Amino acid sequence: MVAGSEQPTIQDLGSLNFRTLRWVGDVDGVLHILDQTLLPDREQERVLSEPHQVIEAIQQLAVRGAPAIGVAAAYGLCLALRGCTQLEQLQAKLAETIPSMRTARPTAVNLHHMVDRMSSVAMEAASDDLGCQQFRERFLAEARAIEEEDQRYCRGIGESGAGLIAEGSTILTHCNAGALATTGTGTALSVLYSAWQKGTRFTVLADETRPLLQGSRLTAWELQRSGIPVDVICDGAAGSFFQQGAIDLVITGSDRIAANGDAANKIGTYSIAVLARAHEVPFYIAAPSSSFDLDIESGHEIPIEQRSADEIWSPMGQKQPLEGIGYRNPAFDVTPASHIAGWITELGILQPPFEEIRR
Amino acid sequence: MVAGSEQPTIQDLGSLNFRTLRWVGDVDGVLHILDQTLLPDREQERVLSEPHQVIEAIQQLAVRGAPAIGVAAAYGLCLALRGCTQLEQLQAKLAETIPSMRTARPTAVNLHHMVDRMSSVAMEAASDDLGCQQFRERFLAEARAIEEEDQRYCRGIGESGAGLIAEGSTILTHCNAGALATTGTGTALSVLYSAWQKGTRFTVLADETRPLLQGSRLTAWELQRSGIPVDVICDGAAGSFFQQGAIDLVITGSDRIAANGDAANKIGTYSIAVLARAHEVPFYIAAPSSSFDLDIESGHEIPIEQRSADEIWSPMGQKQPLEGIGYRNPAFDVTPASHIAGWITELGILQPPFEEIRR
Repeated sequence: MVAGSEQPTIQDLGSLNFRTLRWVGDVDGVLHILDQTLLPDREQERVLSEPHQVIEAIQQLAVRGAPAIGVAAAYGLCLALRGCTQLEQLQAKLAETIPSMRTARPTAVNLHHMVDRMSSVAMEAASDDLGCQQFRERFLAEARAIEEEDQRYCRGIGESGAGLIAEGSTILTHCNAGALATTGTGTALSVLYSAWQKGTRFTVLADETRPLLQGSRLTAWELQRSGIPVDVICDGAAGSFFQQGAIDLVITGSDRIAANGDAANKIGTYSIAVLARAHEVPFYIAAPSSSFDLDIESGHEIPIEQRSADEIWSPMGQKQPLEGIGYRNPAFDVTPASHIAGWITELGILQPPFEEIRR
Repeated sequence: MVAGSEQPTIQDLGSLNFRTLRWVGDVDGVLHILDQTLLPDREQERVLSEPHQVIEAIQQLAVRGAPAIGVAAAYGLCLALRGCTQLEQLQAKLAETIPSMRTARPTAVNLHHMVDRMSSVAMEAASDDLGCQQFRERFLAEARAIEEEDQRYCRGIGESGAGLIAEGSTILTHCNAGALATTGTGTALSVLYSAWQKGTRFTVLADETRPLLQGSRLTAWELQRSGIPVDVICDGAAGSFFQQGAIDLVITGSDRIAANGDAANKIGTYSIAVLARAHEVPFYIAAPSSSFDLDIESGHEIPIEQRSADEIWSPMGQKQPLEGIGYRNPAFDVTPASHIAGWITELGILQPPFEEIRR
């Protein structure tokens, strides 16, 4: 069941009184993002006024999570049009910005979908022969629509999945698929927030999620604000808790889901899925329909971002390891559909081939 | 095949020109340990002259690895006798020190075995009616014998397992089961050093091993010195490399092996064993016979050390997490015998019920 279309507010998020990102102003406005590289130590916004700043923020994971990246990119394209007074200038700016925005990060498909959607709007606006100001207004309206849709989808995911959470259970999650990964209440965590609001009581185990610690830095931070009990564990400890029968359910987000149901998500997700299967614990993916890429048949076609050595060495305070020590730092892995019990979306809990989304 | 009994030297370790620990002096000597909390940034020894300093060093993981802890504890008991001139005084010191040394850490059984062995020597010496000086000499001789035996066992493990390493293969290991975990060439890594010395060429993937990063700090450091190519990965990434068929063999150490073959090792080992099984990759434990605890039937009886929150939060620079955020930090997990292809010891590659050890 998809919730109504009214703008979500702090009430929707309970005590989660923060905004992952927000557009401030009219067509000449700027994009504020909560800088997630500084959390949980500091809650500080970055003010972005140029598209390249949005691209950098996405690449640095200052704004992150497949849905939030899609919204940020839409607004980022609006920033390209700041100060434009002529249609030609505007089209040139978009032609220059769209390719780099679209490829800011390779794995999450929401980024592609939202940039493509903004491109379509630009083409329609051009063919409608709008004036420059009207063009920019329509363009910004589309970005706002994308944000509102993201928030509706989050609520819908929560409604779809809440019934999976049993009273007194323990749910394992990985990385951050929460409010911070979206402009609403999150994906995997939206299911938890929704269940909690309905009165179900449970506890969460949050994998810390090396290398960038989205679990211990971000998921723990937002669950703590919501009042849901959370214990952080190192990624390698999950197996031990499965073995003890201490995990009843796993829910994670996904950055891209192929037509057969294979789902890319933060590195480490596949290991958990294998453990869940070995211990007969159901493993669910929670994601909006915008994270599905039904043009690709399987997860083999999902590009996996490889990130830098710094992320691995930084906790040791050494940016450069000893000469002769290598590293491998894939940012995502792909969990095969065979390991996934269901795909929790705003359209319900789906199964491949996802006819509900194709409609 | 167990190698000869001569004292291993730097030559045995190739370019591994360090000593995990060393006794300096006669019966009034002191114990030098390489402070592993400072590696790889600094190679600095701590000089320990009191048993409580040895207990602290063990608890802080300044000296670590089941075999090395056993040797350190034996020398630690020798430190208790420094300055003793009367037998009564000496017996009182031992009675006071033995229980706290034996329980410095709960999981590795070598500590218990070596403390018990030193206790037996003390009782024998007492019944032999030795003088104080002779008693202390016999006591120190036993600690030296334990160290030499550890070094022989390391070489023996290397010899036993070297044939498992195929030319051109990739071996995954977890934590540090190397020279730094022993006073010799290590356990799991001894197998690699032995194969390398025989001319086999291969590469190693080293799990970084959160929370204390023994993989990225210690295993990478000693493999780099040995010239064996090593890539560090985050613990959660192992699944992705298994999935890609990029791992041919897994070898880890163990802190305690039960009679049925269940093996306790650093947290995260069990996850790897489950992944290895799911991908039909052989998973081996490498450990000396002194790590076997044949008095317990299964891994259920192995006590698992729970460590502090600091280890989880320290990479984020915050020693205290936000109020309301919990943590779970088990230091070890138990891999069931069903997931282990073989137990590589100085007596060969064994299978339960380990008759070779019982003899």
